[in-house]
Amino acid sequence: MASTPIRILGIDPGLRRTGWGIIDIEGNRLMFVGCGSVETREGMALAERLLLIHQGLARVLGDFRPEEAAVEQTFVNKDGVATLKLGQARGVAMLAPAVFGISVAEYAPNQVKKTVVGAGHADKNQIQVMLKILLPKADPKTPDAADALAIAITHAHHRQSTALKLKVAGA
Amino acid sequence: MASTPIRILGIDPGLRRTGWGIIDIEGNRLMFVGCGSVETREGMALAERLLLIHQGLARVLGDFRPEEAAVEQTFVNKDGVATLKLGQARGVAMLAPAVFGISVAEYAPNQVKKTVVGAGHADKNQIQVMLKILLPKADPKTPDAADALAIAITHAHHRQSTALKLKVAGA
Repeated sequence: MASTPIRILGIDPGLRRTGWGIIDIEGNRLMFVGCGSVETREGMALAERLLLIHQGLARVLGDFRPEEAAVEQTFVNKDGVATLKLGQARGVAMLAPAVFGISVAEYAPNQVKKTVVGAGHADKNQIQVMLKILLPKADPKTPDAADALAIAITHAHHRQSTALKLKVAGA
Repeated sequence: MASTPIRILGIDPGLRRTGWGIIDIEGNRLMFVGCGSVETREGMALAERLLLIHQGLARVLGDFRPEEAAVEQTFVNKDGVATLKLGQARGVAMLAPAVFGISVAEYAPNQVKKTVVGAGHADKNQIQVMLKILLPKADPKTPDAADALAIAITHAHHRQSTALKLKVAGA
């Protein structure tokens, strides 16, 4: 009995560069579909940068029609200005799938590393190596696109228990 | 020679409650048009809350067709979690006018107080009193709606110098 593939969008939000990665999952098989990043320039007005992020992700959602989406949970540190910037980009990044009627799961950075590499303290390099093994056809041009693919893989592994948890939380 | 009125949307973003206020300015005359707030519940998924804020503001933009918009600049403090929450709501709130092709000016909280009350250290109460004088027909039901009107008034007073600055920054 053949199962239908599920298409997942992973997003790594950032005001300067928001990475996106799309994979299909069919049973236990992962397939690379596409990845990239939406970039904005430092000198632009904030609202204009947020609009570019929104339009870029809306294009990805329209072109690839993913069925589920995931973003990384954000570490908050003492740099309030950086946290605010990231928060603004993250809000807009999470809104885009919601506008398309797609639920957005959130995963802690450690959970992403543990899922992709097997250890919660893995470095960026180990994630890149594992990405090449798990998705041989993937060619992320930026670290943000690679991170977005790692988040999509994490959701592929946890989506059933996440869906259950969301159901319970929403009940 | 009659001048055409300009319609301004002020936004006070928040994840739980986003205030909005609309005024018309014609020469030196301010006229109240409408105000309110978009509310979301604590227990909802983050993406769903952001979607409600987006839809609420999109409805206001569609109904009232403002020509310019303004938000308050955000104070960042050491509470990273609160800053992130506000940042996410603020990003979505600033995106809404941008999607409608409307530029979004930003004003420091002190500038809002100084414009409305005449002193940068005014308290909420003084702002409410001045709002009643400047916009006698306004009936803000929440502090967020009142703040949004104060931001709209601030933009009405500073919009010409702000527009000049934006032009220089964008050049």
